[in-house]
Amino acid sequence: MTGTAPVPFTADDYAARMERAARQAADAGLAGLLVAPGPDMVWLTGYTPPADTERLTLLVLAPGRPPELVVPALEAPDAGRATGAPALTLRDWTDGKDPYALTAALLDARGRFGVSDNAWALHLLALQRTLPDTSYVALTEALPMLRAVKDAAELERLAAAGAAAAGAAADAAFEEIRQVRFSGRPESEVAADLAGLLRRFGHSQVDFTIVASGPNGANPHHEAGDRRIERGDMVVLDFGGLKDGYGSDTSRTVHVGEPTDEERRVHDLVREAQEAGFRAVRPGAACQDVDRAARAVIADAGYGEYFIHRTGHGIGVTTHEPPYMIEGEEQPLVPGMCFSVEPGVYLPGRFGVRIEDIVTVTEDGGRRLNDTERELVTVA
Amino acid sequence: MTGTAPVPFTADDYAARMERAARQAADAGLAGLLVAPGPDMVWLTGYTPPADTERLTLLVLAPGRPPELVVPALEAPDAGRATGAPALTLRDWTDGKDPYALTAALLDARGRFGVSDNAWALHLLALQRTLPDTSYVALTEALPMLRAVKDAAELERLAAAGAAAAGAAADAAFEEIRQVRFSGRPESEVAADLAGLLRRFGHSQVDFTIVASGPNGANPHHEAGDRRIERGDMVVLDFGGLKDGYGSDTSRTVHVGEPTDEERRVHDLVREAQEAGFRAVRPGAACQDVDRAARAVIADAGYGEYFIHRTGHGIGVTTHEPPYMIEGEEQPLVPGMCFSVEPGVYLPGRFGVRIEDIVTVTEDGGRRLNDTERELVTVA
Repeated sequence: MTGTAPVPFTADDYAARMERAARQAADAGLAGLLVAPGPDMVWLTGYTPPADTERLTLLVLAPGRPPELVVPALEAPDAGRATGAPALTLRDWTDGKDPYALTAALLDARGRFGVSDNAWALHLLALQRTLPDTSYVALTEALPMLRAVKDAAELERLAAAGAAAAGAAADAAFEEIRQVRFSGRPESEVAADLAGLLRRFGHSQVDFTIVASGPNGANPHHEAGDRRIERGDMVVLDFGGLKDGYGSDTSRTVHVGEPTDEERRVHDLVREAQEAGFRAVRPGAACQDVDRAARAVIADAGYGEYFIHRTGHGIGVTTHEPPYMIEGEEQPLVPGMCFSVEPGVYLPGRFGVRIEDIVTVTEDGGRRLNDTERELVTVA
Repeated sequence: MTGTAPVPFTADDYAARMERAARQAADAGLAGLLVAPGPDMVWLTGYTPPADTERLTLLVLAPGRPPELVVPALEAPDAGRATGAPALTLRDWTDGKDPYALTAALLDARGRFGVSDNAWALHLLALQRTLPDTSYVALTEALPMLRAVKDAAELERLAAAGAAAAGAAADAAFEEIRQVRFSGRPESEVAADLAGLLRRFGHSQVDFTIVASGPNGANPHHEAGDRRIERGDMVVLDFGGLKDGYGSDTSRTVHVGEPTDEERRVHDLVREAQEAGFRAVRPGAACQDVDRAARAVIADAGYGEYFIHRTGHGIGVTTHEPPYMIEGEEQPLVPGMCFSVEPGVYLPGRFGVRIEDIVTVTEDGGRRLNDTERELVTVA
């Protein structure tokens, strides 16, 4: 069921990504990109430092220059073994030396740079002080779509090739969890089952396993607590993580025993909203169109005030990234983008319902990367 | 062996820390502190958001004002349940609203602020843009000692009270691992054993389990790979994580079978250097004195060029924080500080040796929080 591992990315794949990023930076009028450890760096180079700390590790991409990686000397051997390393010039520094002076020598002292969203303030402030005439913009503001459009090898990891993909593994986990007993067990136990299933189906990292029963379901970010699940509860399940470096994220809401008419009606409404959001996905539509389509269904039924979050977020080497499906986001959809469509209704003190699939944009419209039952499933 | 859990921190404990931090900020001429999710926030409030993301969560501490927590509306219920929440005013914001405008209204528009080292560049840049006349300094530069001096309740977690503490749990893990077979097994297997032992002895989080055998030991940041450990190898073990919210970190170097004279000599040298570093710990000594004392022993023996990192780092709610024991750090030692003393010698292509204890400063000198065998231990 975990399938075979996908074909690994090559040094050429990473070199091409770095070249593309530098070109996009130039097109956006930037003197370069400063890439911190985390999803940007792993996507561009395949390299993840042993830890993200006060010791500066920074990838410098400047148009017309080879990529350079500022790295603590202690970690240079590891960095040198990264798949993307052949395209990198390592600039290592030893404890006690000033890594910002080293970095400054690689930068246009009057340039404007895109910097990874999650770069540490410590490092940014030191660069601002070392090069007072530089300026900076967050990478997702400067190049929001840098990682958004997935190529075929990435889509394979997210979903396309069947059971080996992250989305299929999450679906397999749902098929198993709907068979287990819910009633009488604390949420945290079902969450632990879910985490175990995600790992069994090949996830290397579990990012979240939300099990929100009864009134807890009305808090979209409730994780899983010690509340004992009871017969008659709605239970929101929302789970995902990384498999082969790419993300899964899916939600289904199940019912313990037979639902009431109202519970069924709210669930049907959310399912209809999710379908409407999905159908709004096509090349050239704006991100906000997906949000509007899903939201309109819920608002028209009089539940608008209970849909209290945006409709979706991108997914790739993280489970949470641009593009965002939210009012005001005019970014057009492009084939290869992957994001969640996950409307919900949250009735305070009572219950919540959320249904979520990852959807990718194709030339013809949207294609779901999750495909488990969207009708209300009852569990024991 | 995992002992009983320590007495929990109370709302008053967190309120006192926040008040102290605001006062220190004022003394340092700052208009306030901007505290990001992570170690600073958990230390000040007990709150850890479900994830550290592009959605702004920020604690604002300004002298003379009650502490305010800017938090996404979805996460406000969780934040409200944090132990430190009674002292906090929650300022929640919903998707689509501008959290920086909300934050700006809480800040002196011409003030200088300390900001958590690990605050995201995305958030800092947005604040700089929203309030162009503010200025910022990294928290560890402005108040490097904010979290450095531990109180009795913190020391209990780090080590003092015996088997329940993080340091004692790490020692228990070492006592077990020295009994297992090393020869013929890949490093990664021994590392997995170590991780299992840390968890068995009560760690909720394992941060690192370095198993660096033979020539891999000469890279101080080698983690654990597929190299098969052989008879005749030196093996550097360096492991730690969090237990009850506080860190452990200890290193011992063991030998598979009988060591050569040279291996024994280098190990003795590092042990002597570690002892010298430890003996330099006393109130009023500078951090750099600890580094100098350890380094002098190694340099005098002609191995100075093979001791390629600083001598130590602080530990508390993280396994890696100020104060740093490094040349140039003139910060005086104060009773209650906790940090590693971990000299090493790394012979490229051959082997490495590192010995590390966490040491706390007392009125009388240093006290080790690790106490396993420092003579060269042989393993099977």
